[in-house]
Amino acid sequence: MKQYVYAFREGSSEMKPLLGGKGANLAEMTRIGLPVPGGFTITTEACIEYYEQGNMIWDDLRQQIGQKLSEMETEMGHQLGEVKNPLLVSVRSGAVVSMPGMMDTILNLGLNDETVQGLANTSGNQRFAFDSYRRLIQMFGDVVLEIPKYKFDSLLEKKKTEKGAASDTDLVAEDFMDLVEAFKKVVQKETRKPFPQDPQVQLMMAVEAVFKSWNNPRARVYREHNDISHHLGTAVNIQVMVFGNMGNDSGTGVAFTRNPSTGENKLYGEFLVNAQGEDVVAGIRTPKDIEEMKNLLPEAYQQFKEVAQLLEKHYRDMQDIEFTVNRGKLFMLQTRTGKRTAQAAIQVAVDMVEEGLITKEEAVLRMNPSDLDQLLHPTFDEKALEEAALITKGLPASSGAACGKIYFTPEEAVNAHARGEIVILVRNETSPEDIEGMVASAGILTAKGGMTSHAAVVARGMGKCCVSGAGELNISEQEKTMKIEAISLTEGDFISLDGNTGCVYHGKIATREARLGGRFVTLMEWADDLRKLKVRTNADTPRDSAKAVEFGAEGIGLCRTEHMFFEENRIAVMRRMILSRTEDARRKALAELMPMQRDDFVAIFKVMGDRPVTIRLLDPPLHEFLPTAEADIQRLAGELDVSVSQLKETVRELAEVNPMLGHRGCRLAVTYPEIYEMQVQAIMEAATQLKREGHHVIPEIMIPLIGEIKELQYVKELVLKVIRQVGNDTGETVPYLIGTMIEIPRAAITADDIAKEAEFFSFGTNDLTQMTYGFSRDDAGKFIKEYRDKGILEKDPFQQIDRRGVGELMKTAVKLGLESRSDLKLGICGEHGGDPSSVEFCHLLGLDYVSCSPFRVPIARLAAAQAAIRYPS
Amino acid sequence: MKQYVYAFREGSSEMKPLLGGKGANLAEMTRIGLPVPGGFTITTEACIEYYEQGNMIWDDLRQQIGQKLSEMETEMGHQLGEVKNPLLVSVRSGAVVSMPGMMDTILNLGLNDETVQGLANTSGNQRFAFDSYRRLIQMFGDVVLEIPKYKFDSLLEKKKTEKGAASDTDLVAEDFMDLVEAFKKVVQKETRKPFPQDPQVQLMMAVEAVFKSWNNPRARVYREHNDISHHLGTAVNIQVMVFGNMGNDSGTGVAFTRNPSTGENKLYGEFLVNAQGEDVVAGIRTPKDIEEMKNLLPEAYQQFKEVAQLLEKHYRDMQDIEFTVNRGKLFMLQTRTGKRTAQAAIQVAVDMVEEGLITKEEAVLRMNPSDLDQLLHPTFDEKALEEAALITKGLPASSGAACGKIYFTPEEAVNAHARGEIVILVRNETSPEDIEGMVASAGILTAKGGMTSHAAVVARGMGKCCVSGAGELNISEQEKTMKIEAISLTEGDFISLDGNTGCVYHGKIATREARLGGRFVTLMEWADDLRKLKVRTNADTPRDSAKAVEFGAEGIGLCRTEHMFFEENRIAVMRRMILSRTEDARRKALAELMPMQRDDFVAIFKVMGDRPVTIRLLDPPLHEFLPTAEADIQRLAGELDVSVSQLKETVRELAEVNPMLGHRGCRLAVTYPEIYEMQVQAIMEAATQLKREGHHVIPEIMIPLIGEIKELQYVKELVLKVIRQVGNDTGETVPYLIGTMIEIPRAAITADDIAKEAEFFSFGTNDLTQMTYGFSRDDAGKFIKEYRDKGILEKDPFQQIDRRGVGELMKTAVKLGLESRSDLKLGICGEHGGDPSSVEFCHLLGLDYVSCSPFRVPIARLAAAQAAIRYPS
Repeated sequence: MKQYVYAFREGSSEMKPLLGGKGANLAEMTRIGLPVPGGFTITTEACIEYYEQGNMIWDDLRQQIGQKLSEMETEMGHQLGEVKNPLLVSVRSGAVVSMPGMMDTILNLGLNDETVQGLANTSGNQRFAFDSYRRLIQMFGDVVLEIPKYKFDSLLEKKKTEKGAASDTDLVAEDFMDLVEAFKKVVQKETRKPFPQDPQVQLMMAVEAVFKSWNNPRARVYREHNDISHHLGTAVNIQVMVFGNMGNDSGTGVAFTRNPSTGENKLYGEFLVNAQGEDVVAGIRTPKDIEEMKNLLPEAYQQFKEVAQLLEKHYRDMQDIEFTVNRGKLFMLQTRTGKRTAQAAIQVAVDMVEEGLITKEEAVLRMNPSDLDQLLHPTFDEKALEEAALITKGLPASSGAACGKIYFTPEEAVNAHARGEIVILVRNETSPEDIEGMVASAGILTAKGGMTSHAAVVARGMGKCCVSGAGELNISEQEKTMKIEAISLTEGDFISLDGNTGCVYHGKIATREARLGGRFVTLMEWADDLRKLKVRTNADTPRDSAKAVEFGAEGIGLCRTEHMFFEENRIAVMRRMILSRTEDARRKALAELMPMQRDDFVAIFKVMGDRPVTIRLLDPPLHEFLPTAEADIQRLAGELDVSVSQLKETVRELAEVNPMLGHRGCRLAVTYPEIYEMQVQAIMEAATQLKREGHHVIPEIMIPLIGEIKELQYVKELVLKVIRQVGNDTGETVPYLIGTMIEIPRAAITADDIAKEAEFFSFGTNDLTQMTYGFSRDDAGKFIKEYRDKGILEKDPFQQIDRRGVGELMKTAVKLGLESRSDLKLGICGEHGGDPSSVEFCHLLGLDYVSCSPFRVPIARLAAAQAAIRYPS
Repeated sequence: MKQYVYAFREGSSEMKPLLGGKGANLAEMTRIGLPVPGGFTITTEACIEYYEQGNMIWDDLRQQIGQKLSEMETEMGHQLGEVKNPLLVSVRSGAVVSMPGMMDTILNLGLNDETVQGLANTSGNQRFAFDSYRRLIQMFGDVVLEIPKYKFDSLLEKKKTEKGAASDTDLVAEDFMDLVEAFKKVVQKETRKPFPQDPQVQLMMAVEAVFKSWNNPRARVYREHNDISHHLGTAVNIQVMVFGNMGNDSGTGVAFTRNPSTGENKLYGEFLVNAQGEDVVAGIRTPKDIEEMKNLLPEAYQQFKEVAQLLEKHYRDMQDIEFTVNRGKLFMLQTRTGKRTAQAAIQVAVDMVEEGLITKEEAVLRMNPSDLDQLLHPTFDEKALEEAALITKGLPASSGAACGKIYFTPEEAVNAHARGEIVILVRNETSPEDIEGMVASAGILTAKGGMTSHAAVVARGMGKCCVSGAGELNISEQEKTMKIEAISLTEGDFISLDGNTGCVYHGKIATREARLGGRFVTLMEWADDLRKLKVRTNADTPRDSAKAVEFGAEGIGLCRTEHMFFEENRIAVMRRMILSRTEDARRKALAELMPMQRDDFVAIFKVMGDRPVTIRLLDPPLHEFLPTAEADIQRLAGELDVSVSQLKETVRELAEVNPMLGHRGCRLAVTYPEIYEMQVQAIMEAATQLKREGHHVIPEIMIPLIGEIKELQYVKELVLKVIRQVGNDTGETVPYLIGTMIEIPRAAITADDIAKEAEFFSFGTNDLTQMTYGFSRDDAGKFIKEYRDKGILEKDPFQQIDRRGVGELMKTAVKLGLESRSDLKLGICGEHGGDPSSVEFCHLLGLDYVSCSPFRVPIARLAAAQAAIRYPS
């Protein structure tokens, strides 16, 4: 016969899958001798079996519960339902993972019209007894009988009004007697049955209610969204009641062993004298600081402090503890690992290593890498946030908090910034033309585009707050308004953006600057020692490169060259190049761009020192550099001295139906070899200059969008021609690598061929995901949310590598690539390089490095270390 | 020591790789005892070795040539360079595959200032001797010494003018003596050396010239384009000269054993009395019909006829033969398999089976499947074509020939058609809105788009002539003009399109209707018996379905439902549906569409009888159904009674950056389940109606654009719900299959999952190619041509399945799919279904069927049979 019920003394913390979190910890505390009121746990397996039995408690389970109950009664020396001196119990759910939406707690179970008198007599406190009884009816009515809570609450409020009572404590025994009668009537009326008087019936009904709550819609939705199996089930804990509301020698409290907000090593919590557990949470009375317990209940305080220290040592982590003092005696009701802020997490982890409590590996594993983001960016003041007016919610595209005046065009953003205003740029979506406006802004808000839209990617690169895809907004860039329902904001109005939540607020909210303490540095150093993956950054400017190095980047994994052409003085030359009708004219324009591009590389090489720098040759389709708005085209026509109609014709000719799959990347080099020639010349001349200044630069020239080995052979040949030319012209030999992005499915499939020509692969997982899924990043926002809501996609594949599909192609590419070239250098430069799960996958694939935007470098460092600890090679 | 030189008597036709085509056939004819002038062949290996030796003829080769030459001289009883009675030889190249651009022939080698007198004496014909000498200098000068041909030709012309000679035959011996002197001066002037007098030197120089011509640029380009290895090399044939120009008892001719144009079993060829080989080709004199040889040289004719029959029997195929009659004696100079038209190919193949010469399998293998296309469509009259004025050349997007008046909008095309005009629709590119205009036109010409653009795909489906991507054209649809360089055509002007070549002509050209004879039917029946693959068609209308059945389609593999919504009375309802703001409004519009859609299916099911019909649920993004031009939007706003700005806003909202990777296919069903619900209802109600009428329809419902198993589960559930509903409503149970397209790389990678829910896979190789390569079909036209010109892409992957990349994904999908479901039905419905190489690949993959546009059905049937013969399972 399977054991479905375990006394606390039979369990331990290792039995969490069977006993649930709460039950396992109660057992563990019992096991190590802490004062825990007696009790037992009905296992998660019983819950699963309950559903398999067709939603009913079967005989064997009923017997096992009865058996454990008897044992408990024997130990306690009195019984459930005993009229003179009744045993009371609490019933609590306890899943393996704590989960909102499930039934929580029923206290005082065992009281009825008779036993309440017994309780009054033995406690010598009639008020306490009837208060406890009405609480039982109230909780039982709510969670077991499913009677709307307000039906009880309103009667309590009415009573308080009648009596002129400011708080529950102003009510007397008779008031609670009245309420008990009134509550029983509510039960009769709502369920057409009286409140169950038999404590055994109460118990079984409560157990069933816990089982049922496992499958209520809220709990199911929660599990689906959090990827928790429906087949885990919940445990049920039945525990002898102790009372914090027995008078001024009693009380109840909740405390963390360290400060969960700052990490300071000092008890932190709240305490109420003469109160039952839920009073602390409910906020009916204002709880006192746990320190005050020292004066009010000095012995219990001392004992609690020791227990807290013991628990922390025992669990080797900061604990979140519930306790009750019953007439001076301390009882532990729960302990669990305490939730904490990122800042506290770092402090606690580093402190505990220094205290010898945990290892460096454990410290590193305890941080959620994504939480580091909070530390690197400004955040809103939490208090201020509570009162803020939420307008709408978009996607949390780039971390941080920003508050400023809204502007609708890049030009106006630049002007306002120049006037000293703090600017929020509001756009339907951004394009490369908006870069300068984005630089001038403190935050960016877009109505369209997903987590990997242009706005999101660029903002993350800049470490700027961005909320994207706020689809409810109706933005008119012409009228300079953004509307949502009744609200209409115009140029110059203040809004506040929370890039961590996607929330958009009306008006100003105070922000707090980011602070990185010494313990952050310590933890990251440990992480660096542990990880196998190198971490590089995606950066195209000396400023971003410097920021990334500050954050620990070990090189540049992706230097995009296209952004360099959008600067004021360059875009005109670039456009002239694009609109050239002959190769000669194109070469002339490129010759003007070359020195600018070379100086860019010199500046970046200087910042990066001897760290490797991977430079991607021009990737976007040429039409991205041309204006599309009528006015811009007219202006450009004037600048270039061509007719408007001719210019429009060229723009029209260059336009593409699916630019993502169009004339871009290395395809440009096949049609216009001179563009890549210019870029390679700039790279090699820059590297030569650095070499002459005594540096050891090894530029890694990356050819994008390769899908076929002959393409790579063709482009590589032209790259090599220029390298030889620069070598001849300068008389210097600079070492270099030539490699390719793996971002087209066909490149992954034919990676054995590709690796014959490529010295390195860098996975461009953004495009690889687009093509493998057939999802356009720019358009998928429209349906990806629906896909996630409907459970079709568990994760946004643009945020976290889809291991099943995209990952399979990466695996193929790594395997085939290494077969052809055993020293092939392998990296990733897609947005995924900064996502912890994806970093773990890259570790598992055996890549050499990940590359991500500067502000994600610390996240990647930590995630890489965690992967190395979890999966040592 | 390796043998590099073979006497004709040492070889055979099996030694083609070593001896080249010409050499092997000369050896074979020698072997079977036909009168072939003696000679020997220098092998292709010698050519390769020549390059490896650093472009020089090494001693051993020189010795082997000398040895064979001596043997030949001994046989003939006189020698090269013998003054009294010189032996003369011809030198000809002979690669394995005949190849334009290589050196062809040098005749009369061995003549010099002395031996020419010997020849004059022995032949008793001074004129003949000097004519032969001047020919040698001319040919040698041109092909060995690389002296521009016109330098000799102009002297000959000058001489003819001087002498008032109409033709060469009017010149006398002295004239040729003069010309010999003049030609020698040209050689001296151009090469600064005299014409080589030593016949041995002449011979070695000629051999080297043949070797060198293997690597000349024209030959290299040809090989690259035709996928011929550069490492094959060419052979060189040296053969004793016989002379057709020895007087009226001599002559030369070329003949096919059957008529290469019609296939009729009758000698077909041309003959010239008193002429050397090149005279027949050069057109200096008009050759006579081979039949006339019967009167002029009756004995030689009889002998030739017998030899021709013998050769055809020996080679078991129609032969193309060159011969010379030297003073009444017949000599065979070449035989090879004769080129023929598609019509002749069928007739010859079927006749030969009936004559017992070849097997049915051989007959089937001899047809080039793509050539069938010519037979199914009208063609231009060949004579008329010679005089036609070519304007430009686009891509041969859909076979056939059309001639008509140009119109620039679908509306005008429809109107002109209604007036009884024959219309050519000229557009920059077509879109689904143009369908009615395309139906009304005899041919379609577009400036943009590739072989698989909208215009190309739809035209092929309709069997209509189409030239796409004629990029040089400058089309203004507003001004109703098409311009190219100086030519400007306007509405109503006549042009002619050749869909087989992509040529666009100015004016009218007479066309010939397609004719399918009985032998075509016979051959196709044989093919059907032999093939393993079934052949279905892609068709969305009863008319196309009927055409396809006539062409032998065994079912519909792809019935696209989107085209059905473009008809006049439907598009408005469709647009109302798309622009609905609520699900209710959408359902109302769909309810109007349902009966129309159901009637479509009823009509198609009726045409198809009990053949399977695969219906793809709606695939394109909704914006494809909305107008984009200002005027159209204004009209639509009026029709729908919404404001223009509101409509524009909706159009803008629905627009996508990359529609190919956007909100389409099953993604529509996740957001708007009611669309697929309507379609499934229409399908099942139509099938029910057919069932009640006694048919056995098993609709195959195909869900497009699946990339993830959960997507399929979600959509399948809603499809099943409707099927059950229709079953309940009608009280009938109709069998059905539910399957999916495999067109997204991720679907192929996760095919084991997908097959758990899908009863069939249909490879959508168009989209699969787009995503695997990252090539947008609509945009790749811009660079794919350059890719092919530069040898980066050997084939357009949208025409022929890329086995290395796309094919690898298909292989994976087949393997994984069958692992999950052993009776999974496998097919292909991309454009590739009608491409012979792709059909072969589908056979190798073990698919159940291919599906292609109606006019390609015969091609697919034949290609499937060839694959089954070549690769029996």
